[in-house]
Amino acid sequence: MERDIQQLISQMTIEEKAGLCSGLNFWQTKAVERLGIPSIMLTDGPHGLRKQRGGLDHLGFADSVLATCFPSAAGLACSWDRKLMEQVGIALGEECQAEDVAILLGPAANIKRSPLCGRNFEYFSEDPYLSSEMATHHIKGVQSQGVGTSLKHFAVNNQEHRRMTVDAVVDERTLREIYLASFEGAVKQAQPWTVMCAYNKVNGEYCSEHEDLLTRILKEEWGHEGFVVSDWGAVNDRAKGLAAGLELEMPSSNGLGDRKIVDAVKSGKLSEEVLDKAVERLLRVVFQAVDRKKEHASFDAEAHHALARTVARESMVLLKNEHGILPLKKDGTIAVIGALAKHPRYQGGGSSHINPTRLDDIYEEIRRTAGAEASIVYAEGYPLDIDDIDDRLLQEAKLAATQAKAAVIFAGLPERYESEAYDRQHLRIPDNHRKLIEAVAEVQSNVVVVLSNGAPVEMPWIDRVKGVLEGYLGGQALGGAIADLLFGDANPCGKLAETFPKRLSHNPSHLNFPGEGDKVEYKEGLFVGYRYYDAKQIEPLFPFGHGLSYTTFEYTGMTVDKREIQDTETVRIGVRVRNTGELPGKEIVQLYVRDAEVSVIRPEKELKGFEKVELEPGEEKTVEFVLDKRAFAYYNPELQDWHVETGDFEILIGKSSAKLVLQETIRVQSTVRLKKTVTRNSLVGDLLDDPQLSPIFREMLRKYSENKVMNALEEDGSDMMLEFVRNMPLRVLAAFSQGAVTEEMLEADLRRLNEIGE
Amino acid sequence: MERDIQQLISQMTIEEKAGLCSGLNFWQTKAVERLGIPSIMLTDGPHGLRKQRGGLDHLGFADSVLATCFPSAAGLACSWDRKLMEQVGIALGEECQAEDVAILLGPAANIKRSPLCGRNFEYFSEDPYLSSEMATHHIKGVQSQGVGTSLKHFAVNNQEHRRMTVDAVVDERTLREIYLASFEGAVKQAQPWTVMCAYNKVNGEYCSEHEDLLTRILKEEWGHEGFVVSDWGAVNDRAKGLAAGLELEMPSSNGLGDRKIVDAVKSGKLSEEVLDKAVERLLRVVFQAVDRKKEHASFDAEAHHALARTVARESMVLLKNEHGILPLKKDGTIAVIGALAKHPRYQGGGSSHINPTRLDDIYEEIRRTAGAEASIVYAEGYPLDIDDIDDRLLQEAKLAATQAKAAVIFAGLPERYESEAYDRQHLRIPDNHRKLIEAVAEVQSNVVVVLSNGAPVEMPWIDRVKGVLEGYLGGQALGGAIADLLFGDANPCGKLAETFPKRLSHNPSHLNFPGEGDKVEYKEGLFVGYRYYDAKQIEPLFPFGHGLSYTTFEYTGMTVDKREIQDTETVRIGVRVRNTGELPGKEIVQLYVRDAEVSVIRPEKELKGFEKVELEPGEEKTVEFVLDKRAFAYYNPELQDWHVETGDFEILIGKSSAKLVLQETIRVQSTVRLKKTVTRNSLVGDLLDDPQLSPIFREMLRKYSENKVMNALEEDGSDMMLEFVRNMPLRVLAAFSQGAVTEEMLEADLRRLNEIGE
Repeated sequence: MERDIQQLISQMTIEEKAGLCSGLNFWQTKAVERLGIPSIMLTDGPHGLRKQRGGLDHLGFADSVLATCFPSAAGLACSWDRKLMEQVGIALGEECQAEDVAILLGPAANIKRSPLCGRNFEYFSEDPYLSSEMATHHIKGVQSQGVGTSLKHFAVNNQEHRRMTVDAVVDERTLREIYLASFEGAVKQAQPWTVMCAYNKVNGEYCSEHEDLLTRILKEEWGHEGFVVSDWGAVNDRAKGLAAGLELEMPSSNGLGDRKIVDAVKSGKLSEEVLDKAVERLLRVVFQAVDRKKEHASFDAEAHHALARTVARESMVLLKNEHGILPLKKDGTIAVIGALAKHPRYQGGGSSHINPTRLDDIYEEIRRTAGAEASIVYAEGYPLDIDDIDDRLLQEAKLAATQAKAAVIFAGLPERYESEAYDRQHLRIPDNHRKLIEAVAEVQSNVVVVLSNGAPVEMPWIDRVKGVLEGYLGGQALGGAIADLLFGDANPCGKLAETFPKRLSHNPSHLNFPGEGDKVEYKEGLFVGYRYYDAKQIEPLFPFGHGLSYTTFEYTGMTVDKREIQDTETVRIGVRVRNTGELPGKEIVQLYVRDAEVSVIRPEKELKGFEKVELEPGEEKTVEFVLDKRAFAYYNPELQDWHVETGDFEILIGKSSAKLVLQETIRVQSTVRLKKTVTRNSLVGDLLDDPQLSPIFREMLRKYSENKVMNALEEDGSDMMLEFVRNMPLRVLAAFSQGAVTEEMLEADLRRLNEIGE
Repeated sequence: MERDIQQLISQMTIEEKAGLCSGLNFWQTKAVERLGIPSIMLTDGPHGLRKQRGGLDHLGFADSVLATCFPSAAGLACSWDRKLMEQVGIALGEECQAEDVAILLGPAANIKRSPLCGRNFEYFSEDPYLSSEMATHHIKGVQSQGVGTSLKHFAVNNQEHRRMTVDAVVDERTLREIYLASFEGAVKQAQPWTVMCAYNKVNGEYCSEHEDLLTRILKEEWGHEGFVVSDWGAVNDRAKGLAAGLELEMPSSNGLGDRKIVDAVKSGKLSEEVLDKAVERLLRVVFQAVDRKKEHASFDAEAHHALARTVARESMVLLKNEHGILPLKKDGTIAVIGALAKHPRYQGGGSSHINPTRLDDIYEEIRRTAGAEASIVYAEGYPLDIDDIDDRLLQEAKLAATQAKAAVIFAGLPERYESEAYDRQHLRIPDNHRKLIEAVAEVQSNVVVVLSNGAPVEMPWIDRVKGVLEGYLGGQALGGAIADLLFGDANPCGKLAETFPKRLSHNPSHLNFPGEGDKVEYKEGLFVGYRYYDAKQIEPLFPFGHGLSYTTFEYTGMTVDKREIQDTETVRIGVRVRNTGELPGKEIVQLYVRDAEVSVIRPEKELKGFEKVELEPGEEKTVEFVLDKRAFAYYNPELQDWHVETGDFEILIGKSSAKLVLQETIRVQSTVRLKKTVTRNSLVGDLLDDPQLSPIFREMLRKYSENKVMNALEEDGSDMMLEFVRNMPLRVLAAFSQGAVTEEMLEADLRRLNEIGE
């Protein structure tokens, strides 16, 4: 329906306009009935709907309606499957329509800076490109159903510890290339109806009042058309926030925020124009929601459960599979060990906690899938709610394992170990899980561990087991998915969206996480995740992008359509992938770019493309990638733009970040010339190396023929002498010349050199 | 002689005063003959005298007088011997007196941030305490002879790459605790006559014009009484430099600097008082030099050579000694392999390059020491001036090794690999050295490698050889020292003053060395050297403090005289060390402190004491340490002072940084209370944890009885809910209270809480 929003705004009082800028209660916006402005509802996501039922409590954690619990983002990202992500989004959108929810609070595109962050299970990846692509397709899916999303938590919200006051101190390149890039692609490609600002500060300013983030970057540079909503309780100074670009405060502040806005407008501290623009953005989304509301919508819970099972299968990662222990044959006795098999950990704690429509019992699903020829025995292994080792349960487990041909142990992180609101302190699984694995491995050589956890764990027992399936938090249909994968009814095809380190201390943020008091400095800079393990040559437990299959794939015939491009052009890369094994399967083909000639600090390589391809045995397909400027660029703070340094770039095709199989080199020519001013402090070496300035500078050096420095250099000719002079600024060359180069000569020469550069 | 310096200054013209603030030529200050102000000479050090002979060239690298070349600082520091360092200083002072040199340009107390720094051989350590102690005793020794020193390069000059323009960006704590601490102890304990400012910038300001460094910290806070001299060519803006505390510009700027000072004074930009104060500092040192000049001084070159041999023995480090391959028996055939045995690398390149009074031929010294019963055969092994592998030389070497009972291979870094003026690019020794070691190890199982190098190298061949003796740059008497150590005429007693990493990439500065353009960010912060390897749990090749002996030592009976102290008190630590082996030997006992209860980021442990103790077989001595506040403190930028956090501290006694043998815990009580203001953004958890504020705050929470947050918290009681609320600032507690806590109540409560703290 077409409405004249400007006309509407002109009819509103200041109080009504200010009122629209904060919630009615915990979940709803305010209506203005006299003008036909309705209230809309926002509720938690991101991988399922959490709409509170009945009386709302005041922290918003009360019982919620039934909804499908999909695998959480940590798992979803391991599918590396844009289409599948979109299907999940569509299902989420349908459930929102059925529940009259206008905006789902998600997806969350924060980068996994540390594996300790309590909320990592809600985040996609350590890599901004992968994270951004997954967020994009989540948004596209949900919004295709006429339901809005809220891309969160904008920005640099990478820990729970002191999350409401901590100041994340990040240099500009890192902010742009890592932390904002994860949001940027999603905003530009998918236009989320809303973006949720984070609790924390970034470089000294609360995100809720960060004009650079909310207005200059998000709205002006990226062109975000929707509104910004505060994370629940993120507002610090309401009037300042509004001016900075925060349109909606949530939850209700009981009139306080509205009053502050009204006061600020009336006192002239805030222009009414700013308020009007905010209201315009709010109303556009409110009416969009109303217009796209589907009456009498419902959803097919069974179909969504089935989708959740498919998604879980695609999201789990086969980390280890020695001697092809998996898939298990559907016969003989198999011991299923560990309380998590009957009381699965399938989702994370906090605002994303869903009341599932159904929940698979893993043990039952295994029995069903294994069929009649197999005998499945169960042992609890450990008490679920405490870390203490229970010897009786251990003995039972060992006994069960002894009598079986193989043992499948369910271990991981119980709910108390990770949640929104706090970070982990270490990467260990409970002592009783670890001990169980070790004890069973003593009596049974065929051990498979299935992990349920939202983020990486240490595996000191890795060499004692043959198989490890990383299940992440697999959602309500995890049981079916695990059974499918264990017995080969499905072929594992997920790959890690994050690095699993051998030790916590190896993580790049380790020396600076979670910071000191209310300040956390991101001193690792650009070196997040595999960017760090690559550069530091620290071997991870499992690298980013790693994941096994029951079949094998061969990569051949890499092609690039141009050997040299300008940074305004694109290059097309092709690679043939062939299923060389016996089973159908899917392969995630990864493309990394390495800048081979750099004058700035850059990671060894960065993910710039990926495709998931499905192949029957013997089948071959060509996977194509198109790379543009951004694939080669770094963010140049002086230019305030992305910039490509002219030079060679290696295009690397990998099965994982550590297993690169093909590579080609192309040259990219920058179309932007960085102007450098020559000063008294320009170095001799830099001028000698500059193709444009070098001839004139050499002439100047000759002119300084009395200059004993040059004589000494020519007479000596050692590396030491050469470097001594190359590292000399012009002022020192002049000072050491004993009067041969006067200040006036130097000034004149500087003018001449600078004229050339123009 | 007593002089009235003020009276003298009052007689000087502005031009004369300005003239005194820069050199007459490359090495001398200006005289003012009409007033009886003499010229004095400064020349290079630090581990030997480099006084140029005859006509001075204009970079100052021409031929110099004969002088004793002691081991360079990298080796000296491995002696961990304060007295020995002082003896070297005394010898240097004698040589200065003999050559009419007033000030020796050294010692150099820069921290080894990266093993690549081309000038590391001139620096002592990666640890500021060890570095500072060695510098202190160098200065004490030289100055005891009436000769001044120049503690250099102040400060944060940790690379050669772009050294004259690079800006070292370091946070304040790191600056204080690591980079300045290395100078601080030496200035306070030894009062060097001069301090030399570095070429580079620190946090945006050239060291030569850095008022914080040169005046506020060096002169005012540390009480330096002498003058500051520029590194040669370090002056950027002369007038600004003078105002900042740079008294002497070197070398001569041909009158330019003087003119700028005169102009600045005449135009009123610089007060004449500042100039007068600079001249006062200069004159005090000039007259001190003149007054302490010894006429007809000479030195005993043979005695100094013998001292150089002793020092070299104490400085070399036995890194590996499998199956007690060393000491070698003085019989049978021993193959000495490698051109460095006949053309030793015994000093570094650049301004510290000495023209030695004598130079040991290592091969000859080995022959002499091995005696008549042994047969020493020699093979060149590799060409010295190039990296190419010479197969003929390799074959000869293998043949020689085959015919011997053991092979001693001389390898390391040729002169072209490391020098002042440029940094290394990698940690490798030349390919032909590496290949030689591998080839000889193929045919001979008893291989000892003797290394000559100024800084760590990679040792991919470490597992193929039985012994490694790190000789560093051993000075002119290295040959005798090596022979003494190889055959057990002396017992190795040096320990590493720096970490040897397995790979360059493991070094803490790796991601940020040597920086981008003219900026290098010290993002590893406090985590320099072992502080980093400890915290990151990255195993080094050889840890800081490591060094073997031909005897064994046992540590027992650790004592502490108080279990609890205030930070104004000292604590005395005792430990008994016993020589449990068959040979006399020396042991370096190391004391580290770990802050067990920290709210700020601190290293795992820090060196706070060391003693070298000499023991006959079976002898036992008690080593004592006294620790004061500084041993427990970190630098608190808010206080602008060193601060101890009340709590437990572990006192760790180690044979190396990785081999801790005894420990005790004491409690240190701070006498300084850090005032914290409670604000709207103070966290609930912080207030609940504060012993002083908690009772009142709890009462306030009860008063907020309508506050549903508290109700929810008490009803739920999960970790998630608890942490959710603990991480909430008061403003959010109020906002979520739905009006139960008004702004006015909150303001009143804040006032009340802040009154308590006062």
